[in-house]
Amino acid sequence: MAEAFDAVDIIRTKRDGGELSDPQIAWVIDAYVRGVVAEEQMSALAMAILLRGMGRREIASWTTAMIASGERMDFSGLRRRTVDKHSTGGVGDKITLPLAPLVATFDVAVPQLSGRGLGHTGGTLDKLESIPGWRAALSNEEMMAQLDGVGAVICQAGSGLAPADRRLYALRDVTGTVEAIPLIASSIMSKKIAEGTAALVLDVKVGSGAFMKDLSQARELAQTMVDLGTDAGVDTRALLTDMSTPLGLTAGNALEVRESLEVLAGGGPADVVDLTVALAQEMLDAAGKPGVDVRAALADGRAMDTWRAMIAAQGGDPDAPLPTAKHTEQVLAPADGVLVGLDALAVGVAAWRLGAGRARREDEVQAGAGVELHAKPGATVRAGEVLMTLHTDTPERFDRAREILTDAATIAPAGSRPGTGEGVVLERIAG
Amino acid sequence: MAEAFDAVDIIRTKRDGGELSDPQIAWVIDAYVRGVVAEEQMSALAMAILLRGMGRREIASWTTAMIASGERMDFSGLRRRTVDKHSTGGVGDKITLPLAPLVATFDVAVPQLSGRGLGHTGGTLDKLESIPGWRAALSNEEMMAQLDGVGAVICQAGSGLAPADRRLYALRDVTGTVEAIPLIASSIMSKKIAEGTAALVLDVKVGSGAFMKDLSQARELAQTMVDLGTDAGVDTRALLTDMSTPLGLTAGNALEVRESLEVLAGGGPADVVDLTVALAQEMLDAAGKPGVDVRAALADGRAMDTWRAMIAAQGGDPDAPLPTAKHTEQVLAPADGVLVGLDALAVGVAAWRLGAGRARREDEVQAGAGVELHAKPGATVRAGEVLMTLHTDTPERFDRAREILTDAATIAPAGSRPGTGEGVVLERIAG
Repeated sequence: MAEAFDAVDIIRTKRDGGELSDPQIAWVIDAYVRGVVAEEQMSALAMAILLRGMGRREIASWTTAMIASGERMDFSGLRRRTVDKHSTGGVGDKITLPLAPLVATFDVAVPQLSGRGLGHTGGTLDKLESIPGWRAALSNEEMMAQLDGVGAVICQAGSGLAPADRRLYALRDVTGTVEAIPLIASSIMSKKIAEGTAALVLDVKVGSGAFMKDLSQARELAQTMVDLGTDAGVDTRALLTDMSTPLGLTAGNALEVRESLEVLAGGGPADVVDLTVALAQEMLDAAGKPGVDVRAALADGRAMDTWRAMIAAQGGDPDAPLPTAKHTEQVLAPADGVLVGLDALAVGVAAWRLGAGRARREDEVQAGAGVELHAKPGATVRAGEVLMTLHTDTPERFDRAREILTDAATIAPAGSRPGTGEGVVLERIAG
Repeated sequence: MAEAFDAVDIIRTKRDGGELSDPQIAWVIDAYVRGVVAEEQMSALAMAILLRGMGRREIASWTTAMIASGERMDFSGLRRRTVDKHSTGGVGDKITLPLAPLVATFDVAVPQLSGRGLGHTGGTLDKLESIPGWRAALSNEEMMAQLDGVGAVICQAGSGLAPADRRLYALRDVTGTVEAIPLIASSIMSKKIAEGTAALVLDVKVGSGAFMKDLSQARELAQTMVDLGTDAGVDTRALLTDMSTPLGLTAGNALEVRESLEVLAGGGPADVVDLTVALAQEMLDAAGKPGVDVRAALADGRAMDTWRAMIAAQGGDPDAPLPTAKHTEQVLAPADGVLVGLDALAVGVAAWRLGAGRARREDEVQAGAGVELHAKPGATVRAGEVLMTLHTDTPERFDRAREILTDAATIAPAGSRPGTGEGVVLERIAG
């Protein structure tokens, strides 16, 4: 059968700074999935999009085409309103773990379809898999039943959701075309819109440990995604949050579960609690429950009860001891002074090198591996004091982790103040 | 074995407007040939190069890497100095046919390694293959022997010359990355430098029938190629020549051989003669024979003698009648007036549609097919007078040829003058 368009024409149009029509975009995504548009053509188009950009209509059309490549889910049968959160990924970002059960305690449904980690930011599923017995793969029926009963579910996204995105993402990963805002935004939003959530809060990370290194880029990405969600009828908001330093005091799978449990028990590091609370308030507001007392649900154990039910529903034992790494080593402060900076990227890469993350999709992760921080920016430290503990099952990895951490901590004379701002939430963007 | 570089790093560097180092360029071409850099990675890099450009050092390095992918020829054993010509391709561009024997009559060696046509510009080998018995494929030994004896050879480039270029060209063709000046220049020059010619004259076409539609682009391409040749020790010059209207009065394989024979017999259309003479003078100047009387060698039959020897040496019968098409149709002038424009692209596409060219590499061409012009810009015409004769073996092709020719001829009131300039040579660029 004759094809409606020619791939080279479409590539040339974008290459020369033109706008692609809705039918051109629908065709190119569909033809890519059918194998009519080859990988090398799609990568050239992705590079042209990265360098030439796309307008709001084009991005919306691209997202629609990716959604059309797969199935759509439908939560309308649930008695509760659904609200989802998506983070663009950061170091020590375990927020989904306390957040999903916390929000669900307010009688809303929180379907968190999550992924595994690749590179220096961990994956939510990898973290939860450190809990003995817990399983990530649920059928749609199991997911619906859990949303109806417990209210919160964190599970693996089915392969039927926006399959074009999965293929395109793998291609972008090897062709230097990941960093295109239109493609990042449509990749995230196609899955969220196909998932069928009524409301969505985006946590767009900014800083060394994040995908977006500066605020203006992050703002553009956030605005693009909020526009896409709004246009598709999803109540979408975004918080821009600081990722210049790791979130909390842990980066690594079981280490982050442990810290999440502290938060659910009413404790935990201030930045993790603050961000959890801010995102919960935004999600509940979007779900039609503004002004509820979120902190109370952490303090009085309600969120912990939901967590336990959520873990147990997926086969996990919430009382089982968490795995720990076989070996640890300490990183000491080289001088007296004030810790004014602790680079998120370096800590993320160190945790990854220790075995907490994977270099290739098929790699296994170590449940106990990672980096534990004993001081955060603002703390006064003394030479020889322990700054970090490194955890791994494979001690030959210590050297490469130490190598990347060499300049991670910046210690300034007593009286100095950290360069980072006041709180973890930097800005809010709503549709 | 560990690779020296990572393809994604290289793509990202160019994508972000950076310069690639010589070792990065050498690695990426070599790794592409080895299959370590995938097609989709090379196409993304090609798009980044197209949109970000390359500096003179990068282009030279890219060219060197392409040369290194294959064998180099060596003409230093010849007693004559070698000089080659390359045209970027135009409609009715049969100049290589009279030019090579003409230049060789002055005791220089002219090795014309040529290609077949794809798209609307014909290929030199396709034209010569309309001569009964003539064969394009010669061994290196046969080529050397012919250069030593006859002085001129027009043959197929061996597959050993810059094989990376052949693969990259096929990739660029399907990924919208043909129009990158650094890649066009390095593609042409890698083959010419690997071929080992001592001097080179480039015929860079400008206008509707050419690859470069405007003078500034053509100038940039010409200067880039002259720089590359000069840097590699090849005496390189370029003429920018007009391709807004077809060269001569024929476009098509045997039709163009016939016109070339007219030029070699001392006649032929003025523009073909003028360009042949201009290029011959430039080539002979580059070969150390400035100021020789080129026109005399056309007028007195010396060039024709060399042509006959050259054709015979490759199995061709210079006295055999040339094939003619089975069917012809005429295109008539729609009005009285002056022919002020005759679009080269339309005539080229018409000849191609009539069967003179191929749409895919594996297609056969018709020896007799093409377009014969009976008037050139500047001529006074009368309504109903024959403007063109269309030739084909497959008369069902006439309609589509007529379709593209509808607006090809522009007829203005008596007294008007054609829009194109004075002569066929527009500018000269030397190293």
